[in-house]
Amino acid sequence: MSGLRRCAGFALLAFASPALAGAAAGKTPTVAEIVAASTADEWREPAAGNTLYFDLPGGRVVIELAPQLAPLHAANLWTLLRAGYFDGLAILRAQDNFVVQWGDPDDKRPLGNAQAKLASEYVAPLNADPLFTPLPDRDGYAPEAGFINSMPAARDSKAREQWLVHCYGAIGVARGNDPLSGNGSSLYAVIGQAPRQLDRNIAVVGHVWAGMELLATRPRGAGAMGFYEKPEQMLTIVKAHVAADVPPAERTRLQVLKSDSRSFARLIEARRNRHDEWMLRPPGYVDVCNVPVPVRAVP
Amino acid sequence: MSGLRRCAGFALLAFASPALAGAAAGKTPTVAEIVAASTADEWREPAAGNTLYFDLPGGRVVIELAPQLAPLHAANLWTLLRAGYFDGLAILRAQDNFVVQWGDPDDKRPLGNAQAKLASEYVAPLNADPLFTPLPDRDGYAPEAGFINSMPAARDSKAREQWLVHCYGAIGVARGNDPLSGNGSSLYAVIGQAPRQLDRNIAVVGHVWAGMELLATRPRGAGAMGFYEKPEQMLTIVKAHVAADVPPAERTRLQVLKSDSRSFARLIEARRNRHDEWMLRPPGYVDVCNVPVPVRAVP
Repeated sequence: MSGLRRCAGFALLAFASPALAGAAAGKTPTVAEIVAASTADEWREPAAGNTLYFDLPGGRVVIELAPQLAPLHAANLWTLLRAGYFDGLAILRAQDNFVVQWGDPDDKRPLGNAQAKLASEYVAPLNADPLFTPLPDRDGYAPEAGFINSMPAARDSKAREQWLVHCYGAIGVARGNDPLSGNGSSLYAVIGQAPRQLDRNIAVVGHVWAGMELLATRPRGAGAMGFYEKPEQMLTIVKAHVAADVPPAERTRLQVLKSDSRSFARLIEARRNRHDEWMLRPPGYVDVCNVPVPVRAVP
Repeated sequence: MSGLRRCAGFALLAFASPALAGAAAGKTPTVAEIVAASTADEWREPAAGNTLYFDLPGGRVVIELAPQLAPLHAANLWTLLRAGYFDGLAILRAQDNFVVQWGDPDDKRPLGNAQAKLASEYVAPLNADPLFTPLPDRDGYAPEAGFINSMPAARDSKAREQWLVHCYGAIGVARGNDPLSGNGSSLYAVIGQAPRQLDRNIAVVGHVWAGMELLATRPRGAGAMGFYEKPEQMLTIVKAHVAADVPPAERTRLQVLKSDSRSFARLIEARRNRHDEWMLRPPGYVDVCNVPVPVRAVP
């Protein structure tokens, strides 16, 4: 038994590379196999006007906003980015197994035409658009969990509410005790176990589709709650843009597998009940934060 | 509304620092307040004979094994570490939102007196010792979730089985398709959303009580499944020891809050139903991987 076979065998269950993903009869397809069998119309490219780029020294973080769910927050972020608010600001905090947060270390930069306070938008009214794709399994934190535009979400049909949930890669808007105090000038990304207790208590406004590793590998801050204690420990944000304002040749063009597609449904089922030569006891369950949402470069 | 107040306000909900944690009447205590009010007998120091140190260039990873649940794996790890098996080996893989894995990049080092195959030990018989502390909430992946010696765990009373679960910080033993092929010569730590679908399919043998940030911040590997493609990208393991073999003055002495203590029960309830000036809608639920287990230096 070779160590490399051990490695590969173990890893196959998660995100198998195409090279390793030879389909065999009767086996549950891997994510790579599901992606390979998908059709072009099952993918969507996030609109450039809805996409934010945070360019860090090591690369680009690509965030899609959800203006259908949090329109005031999206508008405020567009205003902030277009005024150059984030350019030269920094990552302020990295708390292990929780969040990375960025904004103004000196808390002095004027907000310009952006609003200082916003209606909370922690939940949105439940309506037919955007489409909510429910998971078949029971969720601990919400009456129902699923996806909205491939972003992990939840809904309460009785209360007629839906919201994005705090999974790995979720983007939230930091706020103080005043529920109206979040305005987008300080954002956080979830880098650890999903802190679902925050759901409905703070605005989740989008999702990171590329560049999560740039945030998740930040050295953890030694201060309380992972705040950096010295300015030189803070990574500078080179430039933040709305993708639509970037020349087309400089955009990061990607596609996300649509959550209301047949291939996405196959992926969920493959995660719930995986049968292959490695798996002994398929879980028969999947948590909303444990569905690997496929993202690819525009073919 | 200052940005720093926004930051602090947001962060208070998770792991408040003692300085920020002034208790007020009627408010749910913070983790720091629960820890401050705990008594000495509610803490335990993991036995040095059960504790593994992996010394990396940047610091020490401290792992407690669970020999009551996986005795053969614990014994094999003791044998491997005491023979110097891991010294000079490396971190082979860092896959974003999943695991960091280490072992022999060349897959050549002899196992010495350690066994090449072990009985699987993915689950252990359910008995009164070690004590299982159940959570009050329903779990998606198991009939019941809770803690064994403060390590996240689950049990099935009907099948008379219990097992450690894949939360952030769990240590697993990589294996190939042969269920007996895991022997401890390659280990992984969970660094992202809990991959609970692995539970009962692979041996979880312990938990990281210190040094998780050293693993979680490793640059992600560019190869399939996060494997590093070049030897120079692999971080070398300087030395791995059983803590009992290290001179007392060089040990990392820490304590873990006992999961069957009154303070741990307070912590679980505080996480389920938090009432304070920040929280608007307490979740009324906690996932087993979302309970922050307090660890401190030996006072």
